[in-house]
Amino acid sequence: MFESAELGHRIEKAQYDRIVPRLRADLLDAQFDLGSLGRFSVLVLVNGVDGAGKGETVNILNAWMDPRHIHTHAFGEPSDEERDRPPMWRFWRSLPPKGKIGILFGNWYTEPIVERASGRCDDPALDQQMEQINRFEDMLVQEGTLIIKLWFHLSRQAQRKRLKALESDKATRWRVTAADWKHFELYDRYHSVAEHVLRRTSTGKAPWIVIEGTDEHYRYVTAGKVLHDAMRKRLAQEARGWHARVNAAPLPPATDTRHLLNALSLRQKLTRREYDAQLEREQGRLAKLVRKTRFGKRALVVVFEGMDAGGKGGTIRRITGALDARQYEIVPIAAPSEEERAQPYLWRFWRHLPRRGRVTIFDRSWYGRVLVERVEGYCGESDWMRAYAEINDFEDQLVRHGIVLAKFWLAISQDEQLKRFQEREKTRFKRFKITDEDWRNRKKWPAYEHAVCDMVDRTSTEIAPWTLVEADNKYHARIKVLKTLCGRMGEALD
Amino acid sequence: MFESAELGHRIEKAQYDRIVPRLRADLLDAQFDLGSLGRFSVLVLVNGVDGAGKGETVNILNAWMDPRHIHTHAFGEPSDEERDRPPMWRFWRSLPPKGKIGILFGNWYTEPIVERASGRCDDPALDQQMEQINRFEDMLVQEGTLIIKLWFHLSRQAQRKRLKALESDKATRWRVTAADWKHFELYDRYHSVAEHVLRRTSTGKAPWIVIEGTDEHYRYVTAGKVLHDAMRKRLAQEARGWHARVNAAPLPPATDTRHLLNALSLRQKLTRREYDAQLEREQGRLAKLVRKTRFGKRALVVVFEGMDAGGKGGTIRRITGALDARQYEIVPIAAPSEEERAQPYLWRFWRHLPRRGRVTIFDRSWYGRVLVERVEGYCGESDWMRAYAEINDFEDQLVRHGIVLAKFWLAISQDEQLKRFQEREKTRFKRFKITDEDWRNRKKWPAYEHAVCDMVDRTSTEIAPWTLVEADNKYHARIKVLKTLCGRMGEALD
Repeated sequence: MFESAELGHRIEKAQYDRIVPRLRADLLDAQFDLGSLGRFSVLVLVNGVDGAGKGETVNILNAWMDPRHIHTHAFGEPSDEERDRPPMWRFWRSLPPKGKIGILFGNWYTEPIVERASGRCDDPALDQQMEQINRFEDMLVQEGTLIIKLWFHLSRQAQRKRLKALESDKATRWRVTAADWKHFELYDRYHSVAEHVLRRTSTGKAPWIVIEGTDEHYRYVTAGKVLHDAMRKRLAQEARGWHARVNAAPLPPATDTRHLLNALSLRQKLTRREYDAQLEREQGRLAKLVRKTRFGKRALVVVFEGMDAGGKGGTIRRITGALDARQYEIVPIAAPSEEERAQPYLWRFWRHLPRRGRVTIFDRSWYGRVLVERVEGYCGESDWMRAYAEINDFEDQLVRHGIVLAKFWLAISQDEQLKRFQEREKTRFKRFKITDEDWRNRKKWPAYEHAVCDMVDRTSTEIAPWTLVEADNKYHARIKVLKTLCGRMGEALD
Repeated sequence: MFESAELGHRIEKAQYDRIVPRLRADLLDAQFDLGSLGRFSVLVLVNGVDGAGKGETVNILNAWMDPRHIHTHAFGEPSDEERDRPPMWRFWRSLPPKGKIGILFGNWYTEPIVERASGRCDDPALDQQMEQINRFEDMLVQEGTLIIKLWFHLSRQAQRKRLKALESDKATRWRVTAADWKHFELYDRYHSVAEHVLRRTSTGKAPWIVIEGTDEHYRYVTAGKVLHDAMRKRLAQEARGWHARVNAAPLPPATDTRHLLNALSLRQKLTRREYDAQLEREQGRLAKLVRKTRFGKRALVVVFEGMDAGGKGGTIRRITGALDARQYEIVPIAAPSEEERAQPYLWRFWRHLPRRGRVTIFDRSWYGRVLVERVEGYCGESDWMRAYAEINDFEDQLVRHGIVLAKFWLAISQDEQLKRFQEREKTRFKRFKITDEDWRNRKKWPAYEHAVCDMVDRTSTEIAPWTLVEADNKYHARIKVLKTLCGRMGEALD
């Protein structure tokens, strides 16, 4: 959930000063239209890591908009009035009416997270609470509320780095105490509970938006833009008379230029000679792993996604080179067959799940729903928005069954793609691999990039993480995939 | 959940023979239209008590329709193919394609219920599974599937009566063994798990339909009609080009003439003299109960619903007669205020919840959503359909907080209502109590009765049961209410 919020997003002062006046005006306009329409309320939930700037952001939003029409509530210890009623009573009395914005700062998520992180409740109990929350928020959405859930995140690495830096300097070492590290450990536990909570409650109708909290400019602008875009989208739907209740806040692209894909160094070095040696070694490792008796109780599912000409086919051949043909199946995913179209979209992937002791490699996969189907409009927004949670549920079932699941995004640059396209057109036996559609898709590069970042943020989980593979150099890409696979298999079978 | 399915529903042979030819033709027509449209699939889940006729009903449905377009699957022990995949795999491969009907007999509900009833899993684990099922079914609905969930029920009383009758007769006593009673005990446990499961998974989009299984004619006709009406409703929506995905099978009225309300003997005997004596006694009991120290940690919420002139006001006065004016609040519920209309519909009930040690009496309540709003069309079908689960969630929160919750339906006959209306028109100081609207509502008597039966079936739960009060005789009604209240309070405070 937090991948994109650990990239060091930042907006320079000069740029910030250019953006803000316009954003403030836009927010005020949207707020005015919200009030004069009076048909729905906006509920902003503010949660996240301590010190990630939640309070300041709430203050800024109040400063940017008309605070008379924003109801901000912070929840600390319950009053005796509140303790006398069921726990949700105090949140019910703080709900914004139609036409207004309500900011709940510390809300129904706070206590369950604290209770779980401190070990005072267990996972099933936490899940039960999350489901109650899901039902509650679903009801609010059905009743017309626009819910915007903001999670302010601070990277663990950033924190750790900061402590380490202080420690390694003789002059500042005294400032790092055991208590600081203890607090950092606690941060770890909170992080893992938060990941779980966000995954469980990021629904198609009320998704979490994670905002990196390190840079205040980035934080303010992102929060403001998310709020504005969500209101504008809903206002536009209401104006067209749409029954807009099922539409969530749009997933925003980063407000600076950084994102998961352009943060990669795509051109990694690996010579042919090193490659040959490593390939043999890694294929040997993999061959041994799948022959282990213990693998007879497990299975392996490998997912490949990537832009056209990303090198999926070649990589897959390097994997199957290590396997017995009777043991694996490659499932290439193109447009669904008639039989498949008559079923829910996940059906055609369920049917190809491997038996125990087998391997299935998906050349493209169920992620088509949130990539090509999203970008090309083959399904509605509400369909791909709910798909993230559905995919997480699906993969959760695979992993609980003991399937080792590895997901690879082969990342290439636009230049590299162009080079490969041109090569394909020149080489006779490769010409079948390049079509008009490939050229068309290429034009939608930014839309695909946005979709990929959302996909990784929303489906890279502790139990089924994505591996982003720098693939401009094919040798590097293949070795990284094989090494990752062997690593995952080794962990699972040990 | 099972109230209406314990009334001894039955359809005589002659009537059955009249109904069936028409029903079969209708079913075949609907099945044909389903196939030629090919835009959605119909998934029928068949569950319920052993011996309630599930298998026979599935056979009849296959006989009545074209079995080539029905896929019937029964699930026993998983095959080794199935055991090699995640548990849901075998259900995925059995889903009907668009244009077809799939009957799943023994399905994703079977194992969780058995596991819980046999004590091999606990309540949180069961709830977790139910939420997974809810998410799964929600996805199917979003993907276009029409889900019809049939639960075949056998009354416990009927079973118990049967055993008792055999036992009390010298000639048959030998037939009742300890094992029989043991099995009956198990039935009890299954009953309570089933109630919980049905409550948790009866959603607005995929509600359970409970069918009494004792009489085979009733069982077949009801199952057939439910299936037919659901298909026809959906086909009509598709024909109008509606985005019909959120619409569930309609809740059927009983296919015979029996229902919860007409099964009551409304005119109970109680003389004025007996009434006066009992009233004093019960008011005294109640007064003592609310003064108990232990009540300081609890609270009491009393809900009154009933047809116009059902005697709510008079009954409420007999309760408050036992209370200190500082301790209680009466909340009369009419049309919502402007402030209330700007909030989710439950908001105006949350705001009136009592503090600890207090009493709130609702003269009409949140049940307006599934009564007047349903019948008069003040909200959409999907709104009142989801309200049952929302209300159960709401009441669950009250009870978990320690609130004693008592819900009364004051049942009067149409004749009695007419008599009271006429009295009111004659009596000067009562004339304000009768309006044109009362006369208009009276004309919708059957629609209200249907709504009341659904309400009781879907919201009378173990933790918050409805009490149906025979109220043609006001004296009887008031005493029954007071006695029930004292009983609930006594249980809660002991």
